[in-house]
Amino acid sequence: MTNRIVISDAVKHVGEVIAVCGWVYLRRDHGKLIFLSLRDRSGMLQIVVNASVSQNAYEATKDVRPEFVVKIEGIVKKRPENAIDKNSPVGSVELEAKNIEILAKAETLPFDMGGKDLNLELPTLLDHRTLTLRHPSVSFIFKVQAAISEGFRKTAQSLGCTEIFVPTIVSSATEGGADVFDLNYYIHKAYLAQSPQLYKQMLVPVFERVFTIAHAYRAEPSVTTKHLSEIVQMDCEFGFSDFQTLLDYAQLVGTQTLKYAQDQCGKEFNDFGIEKISFGEIKRLKLREAQEIIFKETGRDARKEKDLSPQDEIDICKWTLKNHKSDFVAITHFPTKSKPFYTHPDPENPEYSLSYDLLFRGAEIMSGSQRINDYQRLVSAIKDRGVDLKKFEMYLQAFKYGMPLEGGFSFGLERTTMKLLNLKNIREASLFPRDMERVDERFSH
Amino acid sequence: MTNRIVISDAVKHVGEVIAVCGWVYLRRDHGKLIFLSLRDRSGMLQIVVNASVSQNAYEATKDVRPEFVVKIEGIVKKRPENAIDKNSPVGSVELEAKNIEILAKAETLPFDMGGKDLNLELPTLLDHRTLTLRHPSVSFIFKVQAAISEGFRKTAQSLGCTEIFVPTIVSSATEGGADVFDLNYYIHKAYLAQSPQLYKQMLVPVFERVFTIAHAYRAEPSVTTKHLSEIVQMDCEFGFSDFQTLLDYAQLVGTQTLKYAQDQCGKEFNDFGIEKISFGEIKRLKLREAQEIIFKETGRDARKEKDLSPQDEIDICKWTLKNHKSDFVAITHFPTKSKPFYTHPDPENPEYSLSYDLLFRGAEIMSGSQRINDYQRLVSAIKDRGVDLKKFEMYLQAFKYGMPLEGGFSFGLERTTMKLLNLKNIREASLFPRDMERVDERFSH
Repeated sequence: MTNRIVISDAVKHVGEVIAVCGWVYLRRDHGKLIFLSLRDRSGMLQIVVNASVSQNAYEATKDVRPEFVVKIEGIVKKRPENAIDKNSPVGSVELEAKNIEILAKAETLPFDMGGKDLNLELPTLLDHRTLTLRHPSVSFIFKVQAAISEGFRKTAQSLGCTEIFVPTIVSSATEGGADVFDLNYYIHKAYLAQSPQLYKQMLVPVFERVFTIAHAYRAEPSVTTKHLSEIVQMDCEFGFSDFQTLLDYAQLVGTQTLKYAQDQCGKEFNDFGIEKISFGEIKRLKLREAQEIIFKETGRDARKEKDLSPQDEIDICKWTLKNHKSDFVAITHFPTKSKPFYTHPDPENPEYSLSYDLLFRGAEIMSGSQRINDYQRLVSAIKDRGVDLKKFEMYLQAFKYGMPLEGGFSFGLERTTMKLLNLKNIREASLFPRDMERVDERFSH
Repeated sequence: MTNRIVISDAVKHVGEVIAVCGWVYLRRDHGKLIFLSLRDRSGMLQIVVNASVSQNAYEATKDVRPEFVVKIEGIVKKRPENAIDKNSPVGSVELEAKNIEILAKAETLPFDMGGKDLNLELPTLLDHRTLTLRHPSVSFIFKVQAAISEGFRKTAQSLGCTEIFVPTIVSSATEGGADVFDLNYYIHKAYLAQSPQLYKQMLVPVFERVFTIAHAYRAEPSVTTKHLSEIVQMDCEFGFSDFQTLLDYAQLVGTQTLKYAQDQCGKEFNDFGIEKISFGEIKRLKLREAQEIIFKETGRDARKEKDLSPQDEIDICKWTLKNHKSDFVAITHFPTKSKPFYTHPDPENPEYSLSYDLLFRGAEIMSGSQRINDYQRLVSAIKDRGVDLKKFEMYLQAFKYGMPLEGGFSFGLERTTMKLLNLKNIREASLFPRDMERVDERFSH
């Protein structure tokens, strides 16, 4: 057989003999005519197996079922005008098979994978994860996810951030709280990091601006649609930045990351009917201002709450989309007490803090703050929370020896993917989701 | 004060008033003349504080010590020809200070940070990590590391690999062996992944070609100069690839990754006397061939050993540099029994396997293999090792439903950084190294 080309290149070889490799997605039998849809990393191609063209190919195709891995040699033919699949970049051609070689067999699938959607309940989707991930409506999610991470890195790099790799094994719960996984670290106890927060701050005096894509672990005994035990976080931290500049960077990174994913995956967005992002004006509202607007708009009075409720987030996003044509809105100045110890209080009103959330389509996707950069104030802030200073020795060292004004933000890769693609459950946005009930296989109780 | 510019832009503003921000690296006093070296993310600038030019600036500088964070306003002046620092991109100018503002103070440093090198013992280097990382001879290591990761991603993407994010919490020791960290996962036991190996393989039928930068955990109770408990791995996996093609990809990714780092950090390579990489012909030697060469060259007979010893690796690299002008050499066909269960035996001689190591300057930096892709053979291979099939249920699923010929490789980010920069201890190549004795602070026994 001739050497393999990727499917997306087939359109360049009309009238020529080529070979392609891939997985059989669909098989349709019409007597002496069999149609296969073949999938490789670049696309999906229609294969025509015609007994009157090649008896060999026809015989070989008899046993071929979905997910068989095959190599097919044949001639690239233009499809008739009325048979062109306009949704596919190779929809104008098909391959008339001359030879088919089975490279690997597949057992009979436990469910039909041939539809445009894969209508499975979540447990089934996850029980057969290595199989269901192959379906275009599922793999598409992770193409977009890869583009989100790439968009994030490109934007962070354009702002002069250096990539850092920080550890996930830590000696204490980084941000307080009991929801931390502990592990046996030789003869000691250690913990899985709840975030790369303290490390990225420590690296401000080294690189001034840093970014990292890091795993973070949350042991909350929670089984909501929004909770995973292991997540991937995208983090930035900027030295010499005041609060408004930090907001500029947060908005830039947030919007450019999603824009990059949308641009890279335009075809997939179309195929799966994902709404285009509205990049209007991004309003910056203090929490109290947002609550006031929500009260006016809906009559629901949450003006004394210390955070927005899920319904509040939906309502304020509706308002900003309607009035400012934006899927994004920034909420600032959350109560200082409800934020981690390192959050800088607002000098004008220390009850509130220089913190911010970036909301996107009804949910927070990014969260950040100006940090306390003064060593003595930081020591006081830690003591005020009743936390042992000993646990922050190395962290405090960074502040003892010259730390400028600084701050940053963090956003969850799965959460952002989920919101952008309007998925119902965050587990759909993780290749191999970890939760209370499952590490690949479900736990038996 | 005027708005800040970054130091590397100073050369564009000769004769103008600018402001820069950064950390004081050096202070030299000459009576009414004080010189400061100021460091920001873009470079290092000489500041001249002359009492006769600005008494204000001179007074403000009196208290300024190394690592103070300052903002300095002044006029950019050309330096006299004989005072130009040719090693620095801004060495042709200096800033004559008019105003100095102290943004954050630093305590007196526990050791001198002003030399070109930082001559500290490793424990001191790590005990003061947030401080020592600021020294150019240390931060340079992590600039190079960031460039290595970027070079890896760019090369993997150029080969059509999709980025994947796979979990680090797993339900069993992935590749056998007892050296695994266990953790309390809700009411269950779970483990920290020793590598992303099994997951990247499972994703071959989804994306065909994948890459990931993943954390991996090794619990060996070992304190050698080469061992870390938590590392960062760069992994690729390719479907539809035979052994020689895999070697092509491995060599391409290995060489292009390092070349990218060398190109990006040319100045730093010069400053710290890092030898340029020799990209000659990369020989592919079977283990037994390499051992034969070593025997001929050195008289040392290791022709029956199942692996190369550290000295063997040094000797074969010497030989290939001398004879083929290459810092790289590929060693293939290690004994099947010494390799993980998923390694494909050589069909021509199943005692040896389709495995390979890429050596660079006397040490293995990358390791990979063709994998067993046939479901039944994989089941047998797992059983042969006496491992419970139940533990590989999801992994095996990927092979049950159509897995083509496939293989890949992995290389350690810290190990590669260490070899490229000729560091003595791998701990120097990790921002916050984890080992038996330390998680940031040393354990007290």
